[in-house]
Amino acid sequence: MTEGNLALVSYGPISSGQWKLESVIPRAVKSDELLIRMVATGICRADIHFGDFALEETATNPAAFYPRVMGHEGAGYVEMVGSSVKGFNPGDPVILSIMSCGECYNCDAKHPAYCTKSFECNFLGDQNVYASQGKSSFDIAGAFFGQSSFSAKAIVKEVCVVNLKGLEITHRDLQMLAPIGCSVQTGAGAFTNIANVQQDHDVAVLGVGGVGMSAIMAAAIIGCKTIIAIDNVPSRLHVAKSLGATHAIDTSDSKVDLVAEVLKITDGRGVHVSLDTTGVQRLARQWWNFVRFQGKVLQVGLAKPGDQWNVSMADHMNTGRQIIGCVQGDSIPQIYLRDLVSWYLDGKLPVDKMVRPYPIADWRQAVEDMQTGTTIKPVLVWPDERSSKI
Amino acid sequence: MTEGNLALVSYGPISSGQWKLESVIPRAVKSDELLIRMVATGICRADIHFGDFALEETATNPAAFYPRVMGHEGAGYVEMVGSSVKGFNPGDPVILSIMSCGECYNCDAKHPAYCTKSFECNFLGDQNVYASQGKSSFDIAGAFFGQSSFSAKAIVKEVCVVNLKGLEITHRDLQMLAPIGCSVQTGAGAFTNIANVQQDHDVAVLGVGGVGMSAIMAAAIIGCKTIIAIDNVPSRLHVAKSLGATHAIDTSDSKVDLVAEVLKITDGRGVHVSLDTTGVQRLARQWWNFVRFQGKVLQVGLAKPGDQWNVSMADHMNTGRQIIGCVQGDSIPQIYLRDLVSWYLDGKLPVDKMVRPYPIADWRQAVEDMQTGTTIKPVLVWPDERSSKI
Repeated sequence: MTEGNLALVSYGPISSGQWKLESVIPRAVKSDELLIRMVATGICRADIHFGDFALEETATNPAAFYPRVMGHEGAGYVEMVGSSVKGFNPGDPVILSIMSCGECYNCDAKHPAYCTKSFECNFLGDQNVYASQGKSSFDIAGAFFGQSSFSAKAIVKEVCVVNLKGLEITHRDLQMLAPIGCSVQTGAGAFTNIANVQQDHDVAVLGVGGVGMSAIMAAAIIGCKTIIAIDNVPSRLHVAKSLGATHAIDTSDSKVDLVAEVLKITDGRGVHVSLDTTGVQRLARQWWNFVRFQGKVLQVGLAKPGDQWNVSMADHMNTGRQIIGCVQGDSIPQIYLRDLVSWYLDGKLPVDKMVRPYPIADWRQAVEDMQTGTTIKPVLVWPDERSSKI
Repeated sequence: MTEGNLALVSYGPISSGQWKLESVIPRAVKSDELLIRMVATGICRADIHFGDFALEETATNPAAFYPRVMGHEGAGYVEMVGSSVKGFNPGDPVILSIMSCGECYNCDAKHPAYCTKSFECNFLGDQNVYASQGKSSFDIAGAFFGQSSFSAKAIVKEVCVVNLKGLEITHRDLQMLAPIGCSVQTGAGAFTNIANVQQDHDVAVLGVGGVGMSAIMAAAIIGCKTIIAIDNVPSRLHVAKSLGATHAIDTSDSKVDLVAEVLKITDGRGVHVSLDTTGVQRLARQWWNFVRFQGKVLQVGLAKPGDQWNVSMADHMNTGRQIIGCVQGDSIPQIYLRDLVSWYLDGKLPVDKMVRPYPIADWRQAVEDMQTGTTIKPVLVWPDERSSKI
């Protein structure tokens, strides 16, 4: 393959303007890889996080390096299949999900989200995957989350690829479904796979971005009695209600006593399950406090290094609560993502209400709209083959 | 009833010598109570804790008051039955367990250990239950844990009493079984009821007093592959091995790296379930660290007020661990204690290996031996009717 393809390359921190849309050439596909022609790629906070390390940090943090292609919520079509890859043919519609080693005890037990080599697999990726158009050296790294899907054609590890063959999937569906392999499985799976939420449960979701909205949709599919959406952006609460939230608490009003509000809604008992997507330590005590006795406190929001749980050990014991770390909804992507897609096709998982597609040229606007909360889940749409240049 | 009976009365902190063995007279039995003729009462750290508040604290802490009868691991025979109590007859052998309100949402859902009124029910008890022999006023409080079983004859709430009628129980059995309603159900139930420990699990128990030993015995009954006992008293580790521990780690050796030792035993993965009975905050990080991905960190050791969980939020999320507060093994005493007694009668739950009976006159020695670790579970044996005076 010699023709260049469009990719968003991180040459340095995004916050200092060092991401660049350009033409790149991928190296040859290895035996356990596929070349995927991308239709769309969701933007997730992890892309920004890993593509915003200061240059000085590259000396000490193994996950901090440039140049590299980010992106880990890809959807598209198979273009080429590595020699040892089974079950895929060119043209198959696919969704991409996270990477796992396939060999550790967690992978072996069908819990790839907790792969013990997750850091290496997802955050380090591969060096020397792409060359800038016109250059001979492949000095741009790829395989971020095994996929680096901020690229119109991406080299993707087999384990990340979920085949949607047999489902009736349109080009627009792939745009809407792009975030399913990360945000959506993380939020929905926390409720369906990890907490085993039931119909008679009261649940609360703190922070309704892509992950939180997906949890709300899952709770609505389960039919939870009470679904409380909590956020400080009123427009997001509006969407949450359209997705099934029965109650909304707007924390932009500084007078709101969050714990008291949740207790009021739940007969003074608190919710059976709370899901936090913010990872903000100063809120942790609050979201722990509005869970009822023996209830589950699900943590999916990435906290800052050094932040610790600050709940009383004695109170935690006496209330019988459970604090549960959640990664990627403990999903087996090849099974769970097909379930989620089926729900979407049946109209039960209306991800289109939270997704907003942006032409790739508008990627800066997409990132900004995610950061301000204007857009819940921005998805970058790649040009089709006939117009693969900028 | 006018004849005095022997009771251990707390007139002030035990540490300043203000507990006293004397003759008391109980008030009349109410409709929802039974009068129990005690055979034996286990001593638990909670008795010492609640019977050692400084006199100044009685002004501010509602659970701190004197005079009062402690004791909450009683076993004996029914002597009188209140008018509304069903299913008991004088002479029935019984074990006493904790108190619950029977009305809150947790009691309603058959989780009495998490009764929302547990504090009032167990730690406040009733005022004016006993009178000192020769005095006319009933100014000694009772119903600690609904039972105040440091009394040869105790007034006990119906909900605390488990009937062993139909099982072949000897006088000596009741001595051995006295701690079953608190320590044993707390340790065993944490594994069998809360964590749902399985045969192929590796488990660790930090602190092998009465609760820890009971967890070890339960793990042995389940048939866990690896059962690691951890303590700083070598003689207790010896008993733990006789009860089924497959490994013992002696932390009295300050050079021992606890986390490394547990990882070495478990192929570098850590245990599926750890149970802490110490509640010591500086150890919390350690016992959290030797649990494998998605493993359960069970907290049954009462921590000091103000002590907080000090584990990293990010690490907790990424490992998928669960920190679970455990109270009284989430037991329904009327069901679970009969299971435990059956296991004991079948020789599967050899509580006699950890119990040491003391004549009531030696109660000071019993407390001291528990505090030094010489005795794992001291049980006070009450004189029979023919010798109910000191």
